[in-house]
Amino acid sequence: MNPRHQLGILGGGQLGRMLGLAAAPLGLTCSFYEPSGSDCPAALLGPVMGDQEHSDEAVHAFLASADVFTYEFENIDIRLVERIAQHKPVYPGLESLRLTQNRLYEKSLFAELDIPTASWLAVNSRAELEAAMNTLGLPLVLKTTTQGYDGKGQFILRVPEDVTDAWQHLGANGPLIAEQFITFRREMSIIAVRDLQGHTATYPLTENVHLKGILSHSLTPAPEVSVAIEQTAVRYMDSLLTRLNHVGVLTLELFETDNGLLANEMAPRVHNSGHWSIEGALCSQFENHIRAVLGLPLGSTRCPRPTAMINLIGQPPERADILGLSGAHLHLYGKSPRPGRKLGHITLSADSHVELKQRMLDIAPYLPNPMALSA
Amino acid sequence: MNPRHQLGILGGGQLGRMLGLAAAPLGLTCSFYEPSGSDCPAALLGPVMGDQEHSDEAVHAFLASADVFTYEFENIDIRLVERIAQHKPVYPGLESLRLTQNRLYEKSLFAELDIPTASWLAVNSRAELEAAMNTLGLPLVLKTTTQGYDGKGQFILRVPEDVTDAWQHLGANGPLIAEQFITFRREMSIIAVRDLQGHTATYPLTENVHLKGILSHSLTPAPEVSVAIEQTAVRYMDSLLTRLNHVGVLTLELFETDNGLLANEMAPRVHNSGHWSIEGALCSQFENHIRAVLGLPLGSTRCPRPTAMINLIGQPPERADILGLSGAHLHLYGKSPRPGRKLGHITLSADSHVELKQRMLDIAPYLPNPMALSA
Repeated sequence: MNPRHQLGILGGGQLGRMLGLAAAPLGLTCSFYEPSGSDCPAALLGPVMGDQEHSDEAVHAFLASADVFTYEFENIDIRLVERIAQHKPVYPGLESLRLTQNRLYEKSLFAELDIPTASWLAVNSRAELEAAMNTLGLPLVLKTTTQGYDGKGQFILRVPEDVTDAWQHLGANGPLIAEQFITFRREMSIIAVRDLQGHTATYPLTENVHLKGILSHSLTPAPEVSVAIEQTAVRYMDSLLTRLNHVGVLTLELFETDNGLLANEMAPRVHNSGHWSIEGALCSQFENHIRAVLGLPLGSTRCPRPTAMINLIGQPPERADILGLSGAHLHLYGKSPRPGRKLGHITLSADSHVELKQRMLDIAPYLPNPMALSA
Repeated sequence: MNPRHQLGILGGGQLGRMLGLAAAPLGLTCSFYEPSGSDCPAALLGPVMGDQEHSDEAVHAFLASADVFTYEFENIDIRLVERIAQHKPVYPGLESLRLTQNRLYEKSLFAELDIPTASWLAVNSRAELEAAMNTLGLPLVLKTTTQGYDGKGQFILRVPEDVTDAWQHLGANGPLIAEQFITFRREMSIIAVRDLQGHTATYPLTENVHLKGILSHSLTPAPEVSVAIEQTAVRYMDSLLTRLNHVGVLTLELFETDNGLLANEMAPRVHNSGHWSIEGALCSQFENHIRAVLGLPLGSTRCPRPTAMINLIGQPPERADILGLSGAHLHLYGKSPRPGRKLGHITLSADSHVELKQRMLDIAPYLPNPMALSA
């Protein structure tokens, strides 16, 4: 049987959906593997397969459904990806996936490439946590090494007595990592894409503002970025892409501190902080990821006008409220409302950062969730 | 049964497909009625219903599938639309559809609204054709009054002896219309959208270049348009939208002549000459049509950078050739190749018309079909 689709995507969430929407105009279609069932955001764009057990039947059906494979999320069972990679190309490759699935591997890679980070120590026992507290000082951030995202699997120790609580919360979650608490001016991310021939293209630095551990909104290009900072971020990204022999989109989260940029973590995939690129860049992160993994030339990552992305969390807004605002673009993922759930996002573009800030103030009253506008 | 979709679209071709792609980010889904079968471009975006006989079963299933209805093409059986309109809202309304299905009605409407056109006469017999030739002179364009598009159903008489050929070609096709052959400087179109409250938004004039009766490419904003010409086109469009109580996108094709603008024909729908708006306008014709027919506020029709649209006809290009060109966007409709068939289009944007022209020259060698570049 000839595969009916060019791209098989592990995961059927909003990232899969937006990849599918970017594939369609190129005349490319996707199949999806989503164990949680076919009632997922990506289901609009192609067939959904998969089961919780990753049965041979489900995996073989998925393998037969497409030519090339990718994933929308790094916290997936790597054995599943290995099974697929035995038969067909998977991009980004297993090395990119392995290293980003584990904070210890990731931090070690940053160290290997001379990319500065917060000081950190591996923690495998309560005694090691106490030792880390003594070495790194307080506050201290204790994190699981795997499965963390959107602030999940983290505990901040502020006083020595927090050790008990911290250990109670996370001690049973396998190997941990303790990181020095960073006082940063702001959080940023840089998103780049690398194709099969090794060509790269990098989007401008994005400024990200979080609320309760979840991305609230982002601004691109990040305002007031010095050339030195931008060049440093691009250099870090280039060394990561090359070292991983990465194919597809890679996202690097950074802290801007008084002592320069510190790497926080990375994701081998399209990223929430790159959603602005659908309207804000000449070629979106989604289209560029598809181009890269399917061996096509990369598109321009240029951002002609300052663009903001605002997440819609928990409750959807009234469509008419948002669409009534000049230049607002609405993206809803087809998910049912639930507290803390990312249901969609809004893109705003403007001719200047000043005008963009005004538009964000204009839109704020219509948002179902508060936006962290103080930043 | 609650309808599962917000919008039901009559027709499952590329216009339906691009409407479906524009609906998805708004969290809206579409069903389609396509008698020619479910292997159609729009099938990617939603269920496809319909049969050649418009059976009660098929029409009722379609009626039950959505809340509001629209069509992607005016050359459909108006009785089918009337059956739907008896039960649920259809936009644009029946008046818009009736008047644009028939060139005689359309030309009469233009006359009623003082919108100048080529001189014309109704032709119901060979004798009337000869009379029209005497009254209007040669060359003369003989057209069917219904079902014409992409240059189909037309015959140009250049010498009196052409009467026999012309009548042989079209005489059996019902009522005809004879139009004075217009020597024009160029063809243009203006696309506007009107919402349920009567608000309107108008895209800039587009210059269209045809080859063998099929749109080859278009340029927006049309270069070197005087304010007077732009205002005249907007005035014609406004009077049409108001007279028709139109809801949705309306396209008016115009000839620019030494004596000003002459209306050629109109279409109550998204139009090939508006495909540039997907990347070239802040809100595309597809999204604006959906917003209008679903009672949502209209989006901005602003075109920040000159944009060209190039049709891909007959054969698809090599994806990598097109995507390797800076700023090129590829849109393939998922149709199999066939001579003369519109398989997709390319959008090119640039910072100036000069740069845009250069990009069109750069892309020309990679096109499967020649582009009418002399214009």
